[in-house]
Amino acid sequence: MIVNTFGRLFKISTFGESHGVAIGGVIDGVPSGIELDFDWIQVQLDRRKPGQSAIVTQRKEPDTVQFLSGIFEGKTTGASIGFIIPNDNQKSHDYDHIKGVFRPSHADFTYETKYGVRDHRGGGRTSARETANWVVGGAVAKHVIPNINITAYVSGVGELKLDNDYSTLDFSKIEDTAVRCPDLEMAEKMIDRIKEIRKEGDTIGGEVTCVIQNVPVGLGEPIFDKLHARLGQAMMSINAVKGFEYGEGFASTSMKGSEMNDQFNQDGTTKTNYSGGIQGGVSNGMDIYFKVAFKPVATLMQEQTTLNADGEMVEMHGKGRHDPCVVPRAVPIVESLAAMVLADMLLIQRTRNI
Amino acid sequence: MIVNTFGRLFKISTFGESHGVAIGGVIDGVPSGIELDFDWIQVQLDRRKPGQSAIVTQRKEPDTVQFLSGIFEGKTTGASIGFIIPNDNQKSHDYDHIKGVFRPSHADFTYETKYGVRDHRGGGRTSARETANWVVGGAVAKHVIPNINITAYVSGVGELKLDNDYSTLDFSKIEDTAVRCPDLEMAEKMIDRIKEIRKEGDTIGGEVTCVIQNVPVGLGEPIFDKLHARLGQAMMSINAVKGFEYGEGFASTSMKGSEMNDQFNQDGTTKTNYSGGIQGGVSNGMDIYFKVAFKPVATLMQEQTTLNADGEMVEMHGKGRHDPCVVPRAVPIVESLAAMVLADMLLIQRTRNI
Amino acid sequence: MIVNTFGRLFKISTFGESHGVAIGGVIDGVPSGIELDFDWIQVQLDRRKPGQSAIVTQRKEPDTVQFLSGIFEGKTTGASIGFIIPNDNQKSHDYDHIKGVFRPSHADFTYETKYGVRDHRGGGRTSARETANWVVGGAVAKHVIPNINITAYVSGVGELKLDNDYSTLDFSKIEDTAVRCPDLEMAEKMIDRIKEIRKEGDTIGGEVTCVIQNVPVGLGEPIFDKLHARLGQAMMSINAVKGFEYGEGFASTSMKGSEMNDQFNQDGTTKTNYSGGIQGGVSNGMDIYFKVAFKPVATLMQEQTTLNADGEMVEMHGKGRHDPCVVPRAVPIVESLAAMVLADMLLIQRTRNI
Amino acid sequence: MIVNTFGRLFKISTFGESHGVAIGGVIDGVPSGIELDFDWIQVQLDRRKPGQSAIVTQRKEPDTVQFLSGIFEGKTTGASIGFIIPNDNQKSHDYDHIKGVFRPSHADFTYETKYGVRDHRGGGRTSARETANWVVGGAVAKHVIPNINITAYVSGVGELKLDNDYSTLDFSKIEDTAVRCPDLEMAEKMIDRIKEIRKEGDTIGGEVTCVIQNVPVGLGEPIFDKLHARLGQAMMSINAVKGFEYGEGFASTSMKGSEMNDQFNQDGTTKTNYSGGIQGGVSNGMDIYFKVAFKPVATLMQEQTTLNADGEMVEMHGKGRHDPCVVPRAVPIVESLAAMVLADMLLIQRTRNI
Repeated sequence: MIVNTFGRLFKISTFGESHGVAIGGVIDGVPSGIELDFDWIQVQLDRRKPGQSAIVTQRKEPDTVQFLSGIFEGKTTGASIGFIIPNDNQKSHDYDHIKGVFRPSHADFTYETKYGVRDHRGGGRTSARETANWVVGGAVAKHVIPNINITAYVSGVGELKLDNDYSTLDFSKIEDTAVRCPDLEMAEKMIDRIKEIRKEGDTIGGEVTCVIQNVPVGLGEPIFDKLHARLGQAMMSINAVKGFEYGEGFASTSMKGSEMNDQFNQDGTTKTNYSGGIQGGVSNGMDIYFKVAFKPVATLMQEQTTLNADGEMVEMHGKGRHDPCVVPRAVPIVESLAAMVLADMLLIQRTRNI
Repeated sequence: MIVNTFGRLFKISTFGESHGVAIGGVIDGVPSGIELDFDWIQVQLDRRKPGQSAIVTQRKEPDTVQFLSGIFEGKTTGASIGFIIPNDNQKSHDYDHIKGVFRPSHADFTYETKYGVRDHRGGGRTSARETANWVVGGAVAKHVIPNINITAYVSGVGELKLDNDYSTLDFSKIEDTAVRCPDLEMAEKMIDRIKEIRKEGDTIGGEVTCVIQNVPVGLGEPIFDKLHARLGQAMMSINAVKGFEYGEGFASTSMKGSEMNDQFNQDGTTKTNYSGGIQGGVSNGMDIYFKVAFKPVATLMQEQTTLNADGEMVEMHGKGRHDPCVVPRAVPIVESLAAMVLADMLLIQRTRNI
Repeated sequence: MIVNTFGRLFKISTFGESHGVAIGGVIDGVPSGIELDFDWIQVQLDRRKPGQSAIVTQRKEPDTVQFLSGIFEGKTTGASIGFIIPNDNQKSHDYDHIKGVFRPSHADFTYETKYGVRDHRGGGRTSARETANWVVGGAVAKHVIPNINITAYVSGVGELKLDNDYSTLDFSKIEDTAVRCPDLEMAEKMIDRIKEIRKEGDTIGGEVTCVIQNVPVGLGEPIFDKLHARLGQAMMSINAVKGFEYGEGFASTSMKGSEMNDQFNQDGTTKTNYSGGIQGGVSNGMDIYFKVAFKPVATLMQEQTTLNADGEMVEMHGKGRHDPCVVPRAVPIVESLAAMVLADMLLIQRTRNI
Repeated sequence: MIVNTFGRLFKISTFGESHGVAIGGVIDGVPSGIELDFDWIQVQLDRRKPGQSAIVTQRKEPDTVQFLSGIFEGKTTGASIGFIIPNDNQKSHDYDHIKGVFRPSHADFTYETKYGVRDHRGGGRTSARETANWVVGGAVAKHVIPNINITAYVSGVGELKLDNDYSTLDFSKIEDTAVRCPDLEMAEKMIDRIKEIRKEGDTIGGEVTCVIQNVPVGLGEPIFDKLHARLGQAMMSINAVKGFEYGEGFASTSMKGSEMNDQFNQDGTTKTNYSGGIQGGVSNGMDIYFKVAFKPVATLMQEQTTLNADGEMVEMHGKGRHDPCVVPRAVPIVESLAAMVLADMLLIQRTRNI
């Protein structure tokens, strides 16, 4: 689980910059004999792609995945699956004005210092375009865990928070609005807020909640591969994420054990689920739910004073096509990473008892 | 970075149950020629050990580490470092009453289902006794990064939260009280709260904040080994942790980009540090700070109705020696895991440019 | 170092079947700032490619590598390097006659049993076409170790063995003949032998010797990552390889310690080099040399009786375009794998002392 | 699979020097619910231990393994298994005369240069004492693959080679003589040869052959985890090994495809087994057999001139207790490493099809 690779048995190794010829990767460890639903895979990419609605970046990318190996007559062969997603709409000139400039709260300065060289166009390897690779990986992973349901939605845009318990929500409405919030009234407010922010040339943070249902008991590994630790690491890999909590999360810090403990029913389920479906790092069969915190996008359509590589303070004007709020497009990304973690854990679990 | 192993170049592989002969591990990847300060290592173990004060579990363990290899005449040789910590004070009889019983919000049920067999004494492999191994690993790791300062403290006990900016606190006072909160007035309140809770036979959650200072620019790796993703995974491996946030964390979800962006000074530092010292997963030289959420301990000194392995509902009485609140002892654990992540990243960074 | 991935810090993850759209991979861990010599990389691929001479398979593939990422203005950026090699000349119909048939001494039967499904065209994932990916990886790796010289040559074709000490050979003549044996008289005999064998519709085994010069002292890691263990694993990954020896190899089993020990000169070099440049798994600065044994290719242009997937014995006629002897094309493959192992070890060594 | 760790799912991480307090390790990935035969495990250690017969080193070590975790009421729990083997008979003074001296064909010079510091006593981490750890790992691994039979024996001591096909040998006689050669006539000659060599103060090389029977079809992984590549890497990790071959090995380089191909029987077995039970890196159900080449031990009981750390040529007298020929004690080591590779592959194979 290192650097450009994620997972142990279900593994993805990725490459690509937003302004190269293509991005892509290698998916390894997929069991053989699985029939892939290519249309469904493309639908996931479409849910993430830029230009899909009025409240996201207007960069247009078809984001069509091409599978190059590991599949024969529609089924996985057990061989590694190579894939690419061509970059069709890179406008490198959009980035000429920031050549040699370190944008505030971007990775420009840290990458330049770390590597001594940098592809400045579109953020290079730090671009969130990488997340399209993960959606491919997650969509393939989902085929390994067909019975597990993974549902993410936007639960916060700026100060607008959807605090309702997820069980009161109608998940079938998530895709009804561009913001992917299942509470349609709240969705409307969120969309208005995003439009407003964009008009200001500003950006805003948000939250995504994810619910995983129908998980068998026993997924997750001791000590450093606890199910929630792996989910947390995965989510923290998404650009702009600043926090992760599962079950009662930060609220549990104020609770007593007598309030928080989930009492058993006789069938092994629990009366409450404050724990969030995981005990000792291992799934207990109850719903897993977690929340991911996204900071506002750093690229503003406003003027900012910043530093360049020559150590001079310079004026920088906002240009290019960017998201005023990333959470609507983050929803399929969160689901995809969760699918990869669970597929990995399911494969590992097959080796755990004799 | 799998299962009972953590890290890539600086690696620790651990073993042990709280009621076996000893716990221990193998530390691999430590560069040669480092003079180890054994007294300081023992001090770290003492900060974690049970029975150290009136507000923690009264189990008495000397927690003396024995190094078995990899050290010659006081210096590391580059060979793997094996170590053990004998278990001296296991009272297995304390657990006879829970043999075959699944304690609420413990890992008993999930482990039994996952593995089909289980050492019920003291939680077996899920015991927090494992964290003593990490303190050894972290204390050795600290020698690899002598100039980086890692400081954790208790910032919350139940509803009592220390919200002061860390820069206003006097870190030298952290060890002045048993609760490890540097604000002595708040510390007193926290101690009272913990005593009160213990009297009720109950437990309570809490928070630990960690600040890492004097970090060189450039630590952290692209995509899945982002510095904060690895810190997050590490922290989430600690028993009872339900959440992790760094920089502005969850609060950033309500912020605008124009508020949150950290503007540069001409020397590469930033005027503000809402980002928390990391950009694009790579340290930027500013302070790294993060917060870890701990739920209340599940073991109560109260009567609970629960399930046993025969599918019967049974009464369970609280017994044994347990912490009413884990955060005071969690402080050195948080520091230790952070030290291992940073040592690992420093070693990796040495290979990043030609 | 698993499955479709090789290496720890310098890593390659590959995919592809000989009859898919393309093969390719992801190279990870390449330090930043290295200027790549693309012409030289292509020359390496040309040395491996089919159809290059009269004594190899007449399949024609241009084998043009396309780099998709990780390179900016001709230099590595430190980001992962994705690449593909399109398959232009797949004649899948050549394989219709073996659909459902298990060719003798091929992987057809084992793969079918292992995975329950199989791409029969050209051997699927077991095709030696995969080795083109390794040549790309090795050619990039060579840029990480510019001062280390890696030279392989054919030292045996069937019963014809070149037993001369490598130091008596003129390496500049290796590329003078299609068989890549630097002794031109022996080369001629080998070529004649291969032509004869092909006329018979048969195949023949052979040997490749590799010499690595100008290696710094200290490469190789303790215990399971010994330099020769990693070289051996790499070589054994090549299709048709049945053995590996380094230094005096199997001949050393008949030697006495007093004969075999390499006595030191005062400058740390040794008077003899029976050990083959490695002591305790670590390079000692002397030349590393090893030999790789290749069995005869299993695909014959003769009739064979064999088994099919329905459990019937069937007649199979040799068809398609195949190598009568693999060693001439194996030379750049051996060099490439060696380059990847050494680049990996060099990067690891950077982290070994403080 | 790195450095002091071996394996992917069945993993061992080891530590220890021959003159420290203890050696040991952590075994990870063992499925739960396996009843361990501790007597049998100790028997394996006894087969490796020094002082067991007149033809091996006279150092006396009881080599008693102490398991510290991962086992409850005699069965594995699925938790990591920690173990130590105390060093009881270290005579560090035996090494005073070589402090600062680089013994010819030892790892003294390479380790000193690599790490800049070195435990000179008994070779430090490079000591073959480490192999006792592997015997523990292998003995536990054998419990994961109870139906697979792994048998090694001495097939060569110096110029004395046992070239008989293994199928003509009576494996039940292997333990009948101190040299572990099942041909008792040859065994006697070998023992005489070893005694003679020891009298000369010299050492001699040898060969070990290993046969693995009753292997299910399908073990081994594509590309870099080919079954024989992993076996080869494992064997090459043993001190003094200079070569590895499987099936017909180096002899196959002189064969034609029409001679070497193994024709199928209708039940999927093959009429011959020149391939050595592996096709395309995957077991085909036939016997796996391979040979390991050991050079003569470098430590002589003779005077040698050598280099010291001050760059001076010095006289060195042979002292201490050493093996004149390592192969008799290498037999259980070869079996143990093979058992770990096969257990690992069996666990991986469980995840390969849906």
